[in-house]
Amino acid sequence: MKYQAIKLVRRPVGDITSDIFERVELETPALKDGEFLVRQTHMSLDPAMRTWLQDNEDSYIEPVRPGDIMRAYGIGDVVESRNPAYPEGARVVGVTGWAEYTLGGEDMQVVDRSVDIGALMSVLYVPGLTAYVGLIKVGRPVSGETMVVTGAAGSVGSLVGQMGKAEGLRVIGVAGSEEKCRWLEEELGFDKALNYKDPDLGEQLAAATPDGIDLYFENTGGPIQKLAFDRMNRLGRMVVCGNIAEYNNDVPTPGPSWVDINLKALRVEGFVITDHYDKAEESTLAMMGYLQKGQIKFRSHVLTGLDSAIEGVQLLFSGQNQGKLYVEL
Amino acid sequence: MKYQAIKLVRRPVGDITSDIFERVELETPALKDGEFLVRQTHMSLDPAMRTWLQDNEDSYIEPVRPGDIMRAYGIGDVVESRNPAYPEGARVVGVTGWAEYTLGGEDMQVVDRSVDIGALMSVLYVPGLTAYVGLIKVGRPVSGETMVVTGAAGSVGSLVGQMGKAEGLRVIGVAGSEEKCRWLEEELGFDKALNYKDPDLGEQLAAATPDGIDLYFENTGGPIQKLAFDRMNRLGRMVVCGNIAEYNNDVPTPGPSWVDINLKALRVEGFVITDHYDKAEESTLAMMGYLQKGQIKFRSHVLTGLDSAIEGVQLLFSGQNQGKLYVEL
Repeated sequence: MKYQAIKLVRRPVGDITSDIFERVELETPALKDGEFLVRQTHMSLDPAMRTWLQDNEDSYIEPVRPGDIMRAYGIGDVVESRNPAYPEGARVVGVTGWAEYTLGGEDMQVVDRSVDIGALMSVLYVPGLTAYVGLIKVGRPVSGETMVVTGAAGSVGSLVGQMGKAEGLRVIGVAGSEEKCRWLEEELGFDKALNYKDPDLGEQLAAATPDGIDLYFENTGGPIQKLAFDRMNRLGRMVVCGNIAEYNNDVPTPGPSWVDINLKALRVEGFVITDHYDKAEESTLAMMGYLQKGQIKFRSHVLTGLDSAIEGVQLLFSGQNQGKLYVEL
Repeated sequence: MKYQAIKLVRRPVGDITSDIFERVELETPALKDGEFLVRQTHMSLDPAMRTWLQDNEDSYIEPVRPGDIMRAYGIGDVVESRNPAYPEGARVVGVTGWAEYTLGGEDMQVVDRSVDIGALMSVLYVPGLTAYVGLIKVGRPVSGETMVVTGAAGSVGSLVGQMGKAEGLRVIGVAGSEEKCRWLEEELGFDKALNYKDPDLGEQLAAATPDGIDLYFENTGGPIQKLAFDRMNRLGRMVVCGNIAEYNNDVPTPGPSWVDINLKALRVEGFVITDHYDKAEESTLAMMGYLQKGQIKFRSHVLTGLDSAIEGVQLLFSGQNQGKLYVEL
């Protein structure tokens, strides 16, 4: 059976552009014992993709190399199987690729077909595990604290902010448009949302955090990082989940001096979810709990057709996606 | 009874200079119930003193203000007491000041008179608690890992490196002279010592850490910070104990970009011992254990007379002290 897939043909220089990808036609393989074939139905587009394209062998995950099919997380149906753990007709989630079909792997998880696809993509799967590990395990929030989250209207940031409210924090979101800020304040219940493009961001941040900042959740990088750093309280935690503003820079912007990390006893800690797959079940239960109590709302930005990924992934870096970005195949 | 003390008269601009201090004569007070009078016998000089002099109300400890007696940690004898927990003749350690006498506080600890003063000052008290908390509690070393420690010939760094060896680490020390490097390698058993003044420090560090760095213990700041950062392994820890190279700068040098903190899942964590006094007993036991097994050697740099502190404290910032610096009164 023939199917469409998208390969990386060269690494990006600066921004991701369409010409680094190429559409190819492939044929599904004959299955060996233990293998199964997945027809992908929904494919997630995530900021981490930019880091997968870098020629960085030190990174947490193997880079996608020119000639490889572009990597993705996705949802699909098992259409043929020689593995009893993944029977024909099962719905699975896991690492797929920019392709209509993919050979399933043992790291795929079977999920219940009754779960809403939007909730699965936007709350329970990649963004949910990321938000759960980052906020709860790394950030260790304490009720009454003040949290600032950047990329607050993004797939992870919007969850982190709402979970923070559910955990009793005062939550300030930082986003890139007035529309996003309104959504955060009026729909998601953030205490305050700031537009990082406003020239007086520093003054606005100071006014919004009169008691300083205890927990900073970094999704973006950019000038807000230093502004927030300077307002951190003693024993504060800074969770480094992403730095999307830096991914297209060849020479990343320096971070704040470490003097205050010492004097204020701060903890600046990064994480990547590939180290935390063992917490997937715990995370799903926690996220289902927030959903059932009505503590989490989400919005999805859905594209259609495999090809839409090529231009679509760029929305993540221009900040034009509204909600969790994914492709329906 | 009259006694000598040294006051801060103005904050330093850049380096500490003698003219920011002034000698004064004071009179010991009459004791109220619960009070006790301590004649200081040994006074510790520590790099942290530079940060106490800064006009930084956000710091972990109240700044010393012009007009105040300069703060110190010290050892002394109770010479008069109206507090049964601190009887006359007891030896105590705690926060004293640059003064021959001081009113004791409830935060002082009585210590056994049989303990060697050099060991108490150099291994068991301030540097020991700092090294113990920083390496064991914050750094969480795992046998077989590679550690780089800066300020390695200093009071804290020399303990951290030797404790690292005792815990099964490969230990690379960074210090500021050939003599110090020889001492680290030949006397203290460091696997390698590097002189940060060598122009090819980066190449030397790379050669000394062929498997990368798992644990970085920062006492100094300076260019070594970024060189080490770039060699950190995934899930590495960077313990920020001090930044002595930065204390005399008005505008501290920026730190490394946070992109790799995310991609390598690094933890950069600062600490100050005032948050960890509750671990003093645990720390003393652990440090006594290392001493008894012959795993820790120390050297003390002893000055004489209260006045010697004024010039003596500057040795810490020029790197000219050889071992733990303290004053015998």
